[in-house]
Amino acid sequence: MVDQKYLEKAEVLIEALPYIRRFHDKIIVVKYGGSAMIDEELKREVIQDVVLLKLVGFRPIIVHGGGKEISRWVDKAGKETEFVGGLRVTDKETIEIAQMVLGKVNKDLVANVQTLGVQAAGISGMDGGMLKVEKKYVDGRDIGYVGDIKSVDTKILHDLMEQDFLPIVYPIGMDDNGDAYNINADEAASAIATALKAEKLAYLSDVEGVRLDPEDPSSVISELYVEEAEKLVEEGVIKGGMLPKIRNCIEALKDGVSRIHIMDGRIPHSLLLEFFTNKGIGTAIIQESEEKYWNE
Amino acid sequence: MVDQKYLEKAEVLIEALPYIRRFHDKIIVVKYGGSAMIDEELKREVIQDVVLLKLVGFRPIIVHGGGKEISRWVDKAGKETEFVGGLRVTDKETIEIAQMVLGKVNKDLVANVQTLGVQAAGISGMDGGMLKVEKKYVDGRDIGYVGDIKSVDTKILHDLMEQDFLPIVYPIGMDDNGDAYNINADEAASAIATALKAEKLAYLSDVEGVRLDPEDPSSVISELYVEEAEKLVEEGVIKGGMLPKIRNCIEALKDGVSRIHIMDGRIPHSLLLEFFTNKGIGTAIIQESEEKYWNE
Amino acid sequence: MVDQKYLEKAEVLIEALPYIRRFHDKIIVVKYGGSAMIDEELKREVIQDVVLLKLVGFRPIIVHGGGKEISRWVDKAGKETEFVGGLRVTDKETIEIAQMVLGKVNKDLVANVQTLGVQAAGISGMDGGMLKVEKKYVDGRDIGYVGDIKSVDTKILHDLMEQDFLPIVYPIGMDDNGDAYNINADEAASAIATALKAEKLAYLSDVEGVRLDPEDPSSVISELYVEEAEKLVEEGVIKGGMLPKIRNCIEALKDGVSRIHIMDGRIPHSLLLEFFTNKGIGTAIIQESEEKYWNE
Amino acid sequence: MVDQKYLEKAEVLIEALPYIRRFHDKIIVVKYGGSAMIDEELKREVIQDVVLLKLVGFRPIIVHGGGKEISRWVDKAGKETEFVGGLRVTDKETIEIAQMVLGKVNKDLVANVQTLGVQAAGISGMDGGMLKVEKKYVDGRDIGYVGDIKSVDTKILHDLMEQDFLPIVYPIGMDDNGDAYNINADEAASAIATALKAEKLAYLSDVEGVRLDPEDPSSVISELYVEEAEKLVEEGVIKGGMLPKIRNCIEALKDGVSRIHIMDGRIPHSLLLEFFTNKGIGTAIIQESEEKYWNE
Amino acid sequence: MVDQKYLEKAEVLIEALPYIRRFHDKIIVVKYGGSAMIDEELKREVIQDVVLLKLVGFRPIIVHGGGKEISRWVDKAGKETEFVGGLRVTDKETIEIAQMVLGKVNKDLVANVQTLGVQAAGISGMDGGMLKVEKKYVDGRDIGYVGDIKSVDTKILHDLMEQDFLPIVYPIGMDDNGDAYNINADEAASAIATALKAEKLAYLSDVEGVRLDPEDPSSVISELYVEEAEKLVEEGVIKGGMLPKIRNCIEALKDGVSRIHIMDGRIPHSLLLEFFTNKGIGTAIIQESEEKYWNE
Amino acid sequence: MVDQKYLEKAEVLIEALPYIRRFHDKIIVVKYGGSAMIDEELKREVIQDVVLLKLVGFRPIIVHGGGKEISRWVDKAGKETEFVGGLRVTDKETIEIAQMVLGKVNKDLVANVQTLGVQAAGISGMDGGMLKVEKKYVDGRDIGYVGDIKSVDTKILHDLMEQDFLPIVYPIGMDDNGDAYNINADEAASAIATALKAEKLAYLSDVEGVRLDPEDPSSVISELYVEEAEKLVEEGVIKGGMLPKIRNCIEALKDGVSRIHIMDGRIPHSLLLEFFTNKGIGTAIIQESEEKYWNE
Repeated sequence: MVDQKYLEKAEVLIEALPYIRRFHDKIIVVKYGGSAMIDEELKREVIQDVVLLKLVGFRPIIVHGGGKEISRWVDKAGKETEFVGGLRVTDKETIEIAQMVLGKVNKDLVANVQTLGVQAAGISGMDGGMLKVEKKYVDGRDIGYVGDIKSVDTKILHDLMEQDFLPIVYPIGMDDNGDAYNINADEAASAIATALKAEKLAYLSDVEGVRLDPEDPSSVISELYVEEAEKLVEEGVIKGGMLPKIRNCIEALKDGVSRIHIMDGRIPHSLLLEFFTNKGIGTAIIQESEEKYWNE
Repeated sequence: MVDQKYLEKAEVLIEALPYIRRFHDKIIVVKYGGSAMIDEELKREVIQDVVLLKLVGFRPIIVHGGGKEISRWVDKAGKETEFVGGLRVTDKETIEIAQMVLGKVNKDLVANVQTLGVQAAGISGMDGGMLKVEKKYVDGRDIGYVGDIKSVDTKILHDLMEQDFLPIVYPIGMDDNGDAYNINADEAASAIATALKAEKLAYLSDVEGVRLDPEDPSSVISELYVEEAEKLVEEGVIKGGMLPKIRNCIEALKDGVSRIHIMDGRIPHSLLLEFFTNKGIGTAIIQESEEKYWNE
Repeated sequence: MVDQKYLEKAEVLIEALPYIRRFHDKIIVVKYGGSAMIDEELKREVIQDVVLLKLVGFRPIIVHGGGKEISRWVDKAGKETEFVGGLRVTDKETIEIAQMVLGKVNKDLVANVQTLGVQAAGISGMDGGMLKVEKKYVDGRDIGYVGDIKSVDTKILHDLMEQDFLPIVYPIGMDDNGDAYNINADEAASAIATALKAEKLAYLSDVEGVRLDPEDPSSVISELYVEEAEKLVEEGVIKGGMLPKIRNCIEALKDGVSRIHIMDGRIPHSLLLEFFTNKGIGTAIIQESEEKYWNE
Repeated sequence: MVDQKYLEKAEVLIEALPYIRRFHDKIIVVKYGGSAMIDEELKREVIQDVVLLKLVGFRPIIVHGGGKEISRWVDKAGKETEFVGGLRVTDKETIEIAQMVLGKVNKDLVANVQTLGVQAAGISGMDGGMLKVEKKYVDGRDIGYVGDIKSVDTKILHDLMEQDFLPIVYPIGMDDNGDAYNINADEAASAIATALKAEKLAYLSDVEGVRLDPEDPSSVISELYVEEAEKLVEEGVIKGGMLPKIRNCIEALKDGVSRIHIMDGRIPHSLLLEFFTNKGIGTAIIQESEEKYWNE
Repeated sequence: MVDQKYLEKAEVLIEALPYIRRFHDKIIVVKYGGSAMIDEELKREVIQDVVLLKLVGFRPIIVHGGGKEISRWVDKAGKETEFVGGLRVTDKETIEIAQMVLGKVNKDLVANVQTLGVQAAGISGMDGGMLKVEKKYVDGRDIGYVGDIKSVDTKILHDLMEQDFLPIVYPIGMDDNGDAYNINADEAASAIATALKAEKLAYLSDVEGVRLDPEDPSSVISELYVEEAEKLVEEGVIKGGMLPKIRNCIEALKDGVSRIHIMDGRIPHSLLLEFFTNKGIGTAIIQESEEKYWNE
Repeated sequence: MVDQKYLEKAEVLIEALPYIRRFHDKIIVVKYGGSAMIDEELKREVIQDVVLLKLVGFRPIIVHGGGKEISRWVDKAGKETEFVGGLRVTDKETIEIAQMVLGKVNKDLVANVQTLGVQAAGISGMDGGMLKVEKKYVDGRDIGYVGDIKSVDTKILHDLMEQDFLPIVYPIGMDDNGDAYNINADEAASAIATALKAEKLAYLSDVEGVRLDPEDPSSVISELYVEEAEKLVEEGVIKGGMLPKIRNCIEALKDGVSRIHIMDGRIPHSLLLEFFTNKGIGTAIIQESEEKYWNE
């Protein structure tokens, strides 16, 4: 006889069946950041998760930042960092360091995916002219090479996915002169998901999700219609650091992304649990026309 | 916190990753018969398993017989059945009944697959002229409409798979005059797997696998090179009902099938366990050039 | 010298030229039933005709019923048949018999086409989920597994035609649970022709066409605009058994079929005569925008 | 009732069925010349025949000469014509006239085909560099712009056929300097058929076929293997004007053409009779591996 | 060291870069006529220019007339020519001569292009039924086989360009009966450019461009918006022989051609200078939405 | 009149015609290094040259190193560098710096190409698993993360070129564990050219070419067959720093590259001069079967 353990394994796989069917050929943008980029074990698991999404027929794209590596190298170069309105003032040398660090982080991820047997192609927002930017001003002040996204040319992403590559993107864009600019990784992920009309945008970061009561971890909401999210913003329930994130999400949903997920990247295999089991992780914000499905 | 149960689920999925990669786009012929066709629960599970294989990127083909239904309808029609050399003497009326029963069983399977959200196309060996046969003689005796496969035209199977259908095949072939003949389902599965150079041919039947000692269920061998199988045949270890099955397997492996599996269809989700976990089910017979992988 | 006989043959072929050009690559749905299914000589001729249509570049599809075979097997199984509003009450066993008989009739047609050197693929309305049905009620009464067509998914038909197969269809559909239902073959042919925006739908049955005077065989009308047909219905000229047939035709024409033909299947090679000579057979009902062409 | 006349028409069409299947997608090169180019009625019939071949799925190519038109225009221009070894000495002005006349004849054929609803493209051997030639010398004597074919680039023919055009070719080639040369139309047809590995090369000219006794019209041979033809040449049975034609045929058959037909273009619809009925016209010379089929 | 001469060569090539990029894959119709067809040196240069346009990725099409060759052959045939409203009265024999001469001129161009290593296909307006015409009447008078273009079927042009051929077209069209008609080459070029929505239509003829003062060669305008051209026509600045040409241009621009160029074909390599340097040749008439670029 | 200057420009373009035709669709690998990477003016010119090659229909690929930037950043990080056998000992931190610097240099090139209107995609040898390496040992000594190329998977390059991207590659490869290794850029260019069977491999570096007399700059050889190069090596004429370069070339030519060019990157637009004029730059080494073409 086959023992119980194996039958349970089979059940887990069968449980995944409707999700595999539902997301077949669908574009999933994963914003990868936070602890999941630093902790080696979590990192390994995130890569495994994305590789599995790709192998079962989804079309995932990773968008990543540089985590704390950029600051580490800026320090190493002996530079002092100034912040304006929460944004790093980015002079020529700083943008060079950012480019270098992000490029290296990118290829580490590429190598990790390749060793799991899936083709990866790491690109910046400059390749194929994907992310066109203009200089961002903070209260009218020039803070250097920090860019706002003006347009997204998705051709290179479509071409790579068509050829069966998993695209891994880092958020350096360029202006009309070909100068490189740093872009906020959350914004880049959101702009890319919007331009691709992605089925889902998943933010992996160090929050548990949206709380009804900021002080109460047990008050995390599992699913919200975009209108409900807007109402919570208006009513002041959503506030603090979560506020800009949610505003960003609301915009992306209105522009065509079907479903955005704010996930706790500190939970092992959170992507898998979210995609393949009935265990919802964090908070999903969805379009009115979608049915909430964790209540099923 | 996410509880332990979910982390274990994630582990099961991750464990499947190398198998999903290994069989990507590979043709898997599943000979479906025995208890798994009769027991409604087992039947549902086999369909789920094959649908999952399809959804994660394999290219499964089901070949099925009629189980005990043919005999039931022959009885219903008030016919007496004669057997020669273990084969049913098949007159005009009997072949008509066989065609009718197999056609109906086929569409039931089609309906089951369709309701799980995967496209299925049920065909006989006559569609597209797939299975060409000639009359089989037993010791020179004409036993009616029982056929030996002369050639396999795989065009219709390739076309259907190309268009993303799961082909479900029943073993009625035709001779040059267009007359229908019954074919042994094991032989049909083996001929189709050979013609397609399938990656794997899985026999789902009511045996646990090949035993070293026919009396000892614990003596099932998990993996054999084709040469080893030949030796066991020569040495008389393999005998009885298993003998023709194994001879059939040896031939198919020599003609290009990579791996043949004799599986116990009475075990729930045996296909899934075999394909996605490190639990080998039954006996695999493999080509010399393949590495045995359960020992890893 | 070549004798007169051969020159006349050449003339016949040349006469076919404009018709061959006109229907090039056009979809022709042939509803096959009545005497032409029973008489072996007529049957052979219909198959020849359809094969010729295929070979000269048309895209024919055969939709067939089971003729009197279903009743014969229901009787054989010792069942009594009840009719409600002209429709057979179809219990579980009856639908099984219908499926079996239709499946077998289908493969006989497949074999006949294949032996003429053309690829055929026989499918039911369940394959590829082509015909989705819901239970039909007669005056509120449940008459079992008899279905009304809810939707037609033409993917499997397009795929087969694309791969150069002649599709042969039998009218068993399925509901959302995957249960099989019998469908009226006329309705199935009409629904398929409509969904494919077929160039022509030809009904082969045992009527000479639409008569102005039901008692007078010489009053058969050769061509009618759909508006004229509607008027004849309103005026009560068309009545009796012809009435539902014509109503069905009117609907299909309004939904995109260009031309419907009610043909006498008892005439040898009626399809060929209709398609390739200036001899109109039976009654054509056409859209306003089409020109009547037998008057040319 | 349908009268007998129509049933006979149907029989003629059905008789064509095996031939339509046999030549499906096959390349047929028709050398068009002789009376069939001059007599308006015969011309109209040849065009109808080729158009029908195209419409039922064959891939015909017409290769034509200029008939007596070239001589007429040379006379008109007041030039005297010299012949060496049966070939016209072709000075600069003569080749210009040949080009002009052939070009015009070509477009007349194009117009005739187009008005029957089939796309035609008329090209010379210079278009796409199809026919590369070198100067032909007769007993060492330069006879001007008369060319021997050095190579055939079939790209333009394949491209046109692929796009569903009927190619109509006239035999002007060019040398490496781009100078135009006249080519014997029989040679051009044979070289093109060879380069395309055509299924059949049909010569339409004013002969009844190959005679066993040159004096006896009733001694026309209907079918010869290429070896038999060689033997007849060796034995001196084939002689006179037929000799170079047959030598040409023998070479083309050895180089890959399957079947060459010497047909009497004076018989109305000779192409149709040859292709679609069991009435063989003229003499077929075939490869050993082909079965003679008029004897069937 | 590399001497100055080579660095200047490199500069010329680099200067061409933005133009090569701008016209990549764009359709350019070149109406070829005037001195550039007669002078052998100019002819060679025009061919080189068009071949270069093709090789660097543009999609040029040549449309040509017969220059003075038609008159020369009409004279040769001893015919008198009558003109009505500036148009040659074209009887049956004249249209035949026109067809012959144009066909020959066409193949000369084909040969010239082929010897430069680019594939050319020479076609008339009858091939593929490209130019459909109806008889032109001058003040109600029938002047024979002179046609007005009724419709342009661009399929053959698209097919040839798709297969990498340079199409070379001569302006003989046909009416519904298949009769050939002469068409004004300027009108044919304009109709073809319009039907293809060409990026540019370049007229190579013996004028320097549009003059503000007809008497002053230095008053040539280099660039005009279509509205400006209309105003110059209204104000009577453009008059005489230039008037119909400009009216023709205005119409084509309104129907979708982006830019029309009236170029002096007597200048060596005028096409190259126009396309690849900042030296504008002759007069460009452009759509409002285009930016004038020689002023850059 | 058009002045002389413009006619000379046209001549330069016409002179380029045979070269544009010859290299149409051909793969050209450009190893970019030396002064041409440092001098901003030369850099701009190289980019212009490669962009022009791309626009006129060649398929160029840039392979670049990091020039002196890597050393600069290693110094900045306060590391001492040890060399063994001329190779930098590359510890973990050094390989990280190399990756970062090369990644940044790469994206600068991408930006430069993009601003000229051509799509560029910058990749490392790790993307798509293109360059697989194993650790290089110098006299048995482990010098860290310096790799020898084991295999080249050209899929990502073919995919990018197919989609009209100009690939820009930097020579970081990975071993089976996914660890990054530095590769000599000359070796990477040569391995890539070999794997792609490139038409030409052009080395842009600070040498004038191969000299017969190392002391005499005027003794540069313009063209050598590979056998002649081997002889010069044997005879000791080629020696010093040129020796390994030439050995590398000889190997690549034997493995399928058609033609290798050692060019002086200090000459402005050396690529253009080499490809589009009859001015040969540096030394070409070619296969026996190629004709030397500067002597034409």
